[in-house]
Amino acid sequence: MQIIDVKDYHIYIGMTLESLLRGYFQEKYADCLIITDNQVAPLYLATVKKALETKVKRMTEFIVPSGETSKNLATIESLYHFSLENGLDRHSLVVACGGGVITDISGFFAATYMRGVDFIQIPTTLLAQVDASIGGKTGVNLPEGKNLVGAFYQPQAVYIATECLNTLSKREFYSGMAEVIKYGLLFESEFCHWLQQQVQNIELREPHCLERLIAFCCRQKAKIVNADAQEQGCRALLNLGHTLGHALEKITQYKVYTHGEAVAIGMYFVATRLSPLTEAEKQVVYRLLQSYHLPYTIPRAVLLTELYNSMLHDKKVKDGQINWVILEKIGHAEWNRQFPEKIVLANLETMFDGNKKEQP
Amino acid sequence: MQIIDVKDYHIYIGMTLESLLRGYFQEKYADCLIITDNQVAPLYLATVKKALETKVKRMTEFIVPSGETSKNLATIESLYHFSLENGLDRHSLVVACGGGVITDISGFFAATYMRGVDFIQIPTTLLAQVDASIGGKTGVNLPEGKNLVGAFYQPQAVYIATECLNTLSKREFYSGMAEVIKYGLLFESEFCHWLQQQVQNIELREPHCLERLIAFCCRQKAKIVNADAQEQGCRALLNLGHTLGHALEKITQYKVYTHGEAVAIGMYFVATRLSPLTEAEKQVVYRLLQSYHLPYTIPRAVLLTELYNSMLHDKKVKDGQINWVILEKIGHAEWNRQFPEKIVLANLETMFDGNKKEQP
Repeated sequence: MQIIDVKDYHIYIGMTLESLLRGYFQEKYADCLIITDNQVAPLYLATVKKALETKVKRMTEFIVPSGETSKNLATIESLYHFSLENGLDRHSLVVACGGGVITDISGFFAATYMRGVDFIQIPTTLLAQVDASIGGKTGVNLPEGKNLVGAFYQPQAVYIATECLNTLSKREFYSGMAEVIKYGLLFESEFCHWLQQQVQNIELREPHCLERLIAFCCRQKAKIVNADAQEQGCRALLNLGHTLGHALEKITQYKVYTHGEAVAIGMYFVATRLSPLTEAEKQVVYRLLQSYHLPYTIPRAVLLTELYNSMLHDKKVKDGQINWVILEKIGHAEWNRQFPEKIVLANLETMFDGNKKEQP
Repeated sequence: MQIIDVKDYHIYIGMTLESLLRGYFQEKYADCLIITDNQVAPLYLATVKKALETKVKRMTEFIVPSGETSKNLATIESLYHFSLENGLDRHSLVVACGGGVITDISGFFAATYMRGVDFIQIPTTLLAQVDASIGGKTGVNLPEGKNLVGAFYQPQAVYIATECLNTLSKREFYSGMAEVIKYGLLFESEFCHWLQQQVQNIELREPHCLERLIAFCCRQKAKIVNADAQEQGCRALLNLGHTLGHALEKITQYKVYTHGEAVAIGMYFVATRLSPLTEAEKQVVYRLLQSYHLPYTIPRAVLLTELYNSMLHDKKVKDGQINWVILEKIGHAEWNRQFPEKIVLANLETMFDGNKKEQP
């Protein structure tokens, strides 16, 4: 059991959902709305409701179809109407139970319903536990791109139970590992080393290993968020691998890669093509991605000019300039680096799969 | 010329828009989006663009139909798409130029576009100058009610030019006076006295009088907002007259009353029916509303049960209780007062127009 401080709230990390909620949930709400998806609901909704039933008078649930397609303005609008119908007021609580899509839409809904209501997060995927649930970024996608609408809005508390990871598919689990690897690459080479050592235990989802891993990531992210909540400065570091990652997800219509897989490719590109790393360091990155079954090349079907154009439409673009996060060494990164379009395109070309250079 | 401090920004109050923007606008934006309506655009858009043209590289404008019907989620969604099409990024500026509808939708758009961009306000109606543009409340209406969606989001600066009031219709001007009277009733009986003395000058829209009047209201509102930005406590005072006012607007489909007119009726109800004021004090309220051509009775066609039900659906309702703001005396108010439904309904019945009791 670990408790991590972020700005005005705590993250509680433990083994079971029930013990976390029973032990650490502040009871002061008459009404709550639980937002979850049709994949998570059969697994955890009953547990959440049971743990809260003696603490909250009325509970209502709103279940969206699982997946990124629910993350849009139409879902938010349905939530407004549903909540009004069910008498939720400014003093009600929103409970987000699910992966990043659920925590993002719940947070944006909570930020904007009646100009803001309290919400707590129960992230159930590794990705949401180490990333989406910390830092107050909430939002939905537009047809033009991901997370183009949103707000910075902090939860009242985050409850992370490692037991939730037992029901995660291998693909989703490894996808989350991409963000875990990101924290290691950004902040601590020893953690990267530990990740490489613990491949087997982590693959077996050994609870103590997972708790340690999640706590490391949350602590790193909390530090960054406390220093720069609104992403004016160092928070940009957390976008390592995301410039290319987002663009790849987008031009493949979010159908080919999970977020983590796309970020893995993005990180590999930055580490091996744009960063001044030694060959040994590049090998560390390569081995980590391989060990956690993550991709690192670009399929030949991808049009590089389309990919580049998509990067140019990223939120982080300023005055038409793509700002890259690069690794000075493993455990130390820099942000706001620019590269000429030609250089980026030439390097992207070397990333196509089947490329000899990528053999270890 | 007056400068008023609100939390992290300033309100600049002066005679002309051009001198305010030329003198006090911070130039650090490559792009700006000016949001205004089709009534305000012919009057002030050229002035605003001229004053900003040497300071901002690219200016784009988005003109909505004038009136409350534009204040909805569809407008916000159009703004997202329009802004993306026009290449506005996280470092762009939103300029809101218009009345409360424009400042509210622009603020909500700015709060949620790419998780928040800077915005400045140029309120052009008295109501927006003394009320809507201060305090960070932004939002849109839903079919179920007003301002049910929104965010607390502060502008970078507010520019208030008294010249803008010269083009305001009498009805809109008096509607704004309802909120001005509200500040007097809430915070300072001397100001109420001054308002009564200055009826003629204010009706003639004498600039120095207007500047003083606007500055008084902004200062009072700034004090409250600085003490309680999120409306957890004393900010509730500013809802004097709004419980009944909002409900009246709503059940008459926003077609019968302006916001100020509805609030005037609401204030009169609270002052004369729910508050422990002396007869002389009630007369002060009555005379002010009369002098500024504001209504104070309820039309007989209104169904009181419908009115009451509508009040029960207000955002400020907690656990099914309507929380009233009442006047202890003129210049001093209290919030969170509850009255039994029967008492409220019986008193509302005495508010019908043609009632003898309301003759002075």
